[in-house]
Amino acid sequence: MKTYPEWLKEVDGSLWLTEDDRSLLKIDYKIKEVIFSKQSPLQHVMIVDSYDFGKMLILDGVVQTTAVDGHIYNEMISHVPLTLHPHPKKILIIGGGDCGAAREAAKHTSLEQIDMVEIDELVVKASKEYLQEVSGNLSDPRVNFIFTDGIKFVQEKENEYDVIIVDSSDPVGPAEALFEYDFYAHIKQALKKDGIAVFQSQSPIFHREMLKQTYSYTKELYPGSAVFQAVVPTYPGGMWTFTIGTKRYLIEPEKANVPPLETKYFNQDILKGCFLLQQDLKNLLSQE
Amino acid sequence: MKTYPEWLKEVDGSLWLTEDDRSLLKIDYKIKEVIFSKQSPLQHVMIVDSYDFGKMLILDGVVQTTAVDGHIYNEMISHVPLTLHPHPKKILIIGGGDCGAAREAAKHTSLEQIDMVEIDELVVKASKEYLQEVSGNLSDPRVNFIFTDGIKFVQEKENEYDVIIVDSSDPVGPAEALFEYDFYAHIKQALKKDGIAVFQSQSPIFHREMLKQTYSYTKELYPGSAVFQAVVPTYPGGMWTFTIGTKRYLIEPEKANVPPLETKYFNQDILKGCFLLQQDLKNLLSQE
Repeated sequence: MKTYPEWLKEVDGSLWLTEDDRSLLKIDYKIKEVIFSKQSPLQHVMIVDSYDFGKMLILDGVVQTTAVDGHIYNEMISHVPLTLHPHPKKILIIGGGDCGAAREAAKHTSLEQIDMVEIDELVVKASKEYLQEVSGNLSDPRVNFIFTDGIKFVQEKENEYDVIIVDSSDPVGPAEALFEYDFYAHIKQALKKDGIAVFQSQSPIFHREMLKQTYSYTKELYPGSAVFQAVVPTYPGGMWTFTIGTKRYLIEPEKANVPPLETKYFNQDILKGCFLLQQDLKNLLSQE
Repeated sequence: MKTYPEWLKEVDGSLWLTEDDRSLLKIDYKIKEVIFSKQSPLQHVMIVDSYDFGKMLILDGVVQTTAVDGHIYNEMISHVPLTLHPHPKKILIIGGGDCGAAREAAKHTSLEQIDMVEIDELVVKASKEYLQEVSGNLSDPRVNFIFTDGIKFVQEKENEYDVIIVDSSDPVGPAEALFEYDFYAHIKQALKKDGIAVFQSQSPIFHREMLKQTYSYTKELYPGSAVFQAVVPTYPGGMWTFTIGTKRYLIEPEKANVPPLETKYFNQDILKGCFLLQQDLKNLLSQE
């Protein structure tokens, strides 16, 4: 008999993955098969094939990205800052072990170097081998994989990157310190004097305090800051926010020049639309 | 011992509502209490109080609207057409038994008459009494409740309404015929010569064929047609589409004059942004 982690159950011969969100909301995905399942020193790493969302990356029982909707998050976290910056050459991605953000960034032919700092090598290995719908089996020579703690890595950098993308998981466990003020300050220091940083800043429905905090740090540290949104069906609440901080360039999406990119979600219209926020989110952010 | 319908279960002393989507995806909401539960001649009507989404209206086990996110759907399905029409006076709502769309429409002081045709009186009664977060206990004298089949009702109307809002449930059971060509043709006939119709047109991820069909009918029948989107966290996939058809007025959201309205989601920015679509949805619609 197979043994599964607690979030996987066999019911009447079918496999179900249960994502338990604060024991108040549970989402059960019917699973075709478990493709990969292993404990790393940091977390449990699992790739399954589901009926509705195709292949999924699961860390400690939480869905991180899927073959069906992973591109939305990854296109938005990379193409928005890379389009707002007029000539990005060297960029840093912190987190993003599924390789989706790096894959999207690599579509920008202007980029010369993409440093990708991920704390858990197993996530990258598993994603590159078993989740190519998201990772694209990323083997671009401009991508420089560095398996270390992003917080320490960035502390030692100064005036080095045009764009920094912080593609963290939820603010629990390994990613907790990625939501603290010091980290935001180090990111600013690691950016060139006209650099742009982007942070995933959680749900505008369920994590309003965390979003407010991220926005307030960014607003304090950067001359230009803004929140943009995308829909990520497999994240609780569906809506997801990103917060951007820019040291020199204005955030003028209507003036940005979108290069030719093969995308499924992002385009010139979405770049404009993603900064147009609903009334209660405007109200929340104006309190800062 | 209490008996519950199959979608409600007691586990370790806690109540859970399970929404089963095609037996591939299940969402379990932790429930504080069942407020109302009764079988109407058409469907099972239930109002529960949940931890994450507050009060919820459940029809035959499917979540229709909630206190936390119901306003998004209701604001978008009503304020978008009512803002694009320059001087709406008499409007018709088909469906919308939770009264949320009528409540939003009633915020437009220019309106003189709001006919609301709902097939199931029990849904309106239960929503007005137990789900006032959505219904607002709607008692505006301009709202004219008509409890009958919307399909038959609209067949006998001609050149009568400035705006028609089709706020149907999913295309199964009572609402199935609201997705057929004849119904769309009758809606057009019931509109004045400069009228605007809006239809909820399902998920752009899970119901792509239904959305394509709605858009193709609207495109065929109306000189102007377009798809707009909103995020509805409690609908599968989070993203939701609406399709609009207009007999005379151009769909120019950037030129529309949004009247002062007390809203939580809709505003001038959202009116612009909701018509800006992601690339794969543009591709899908351009096949029509």
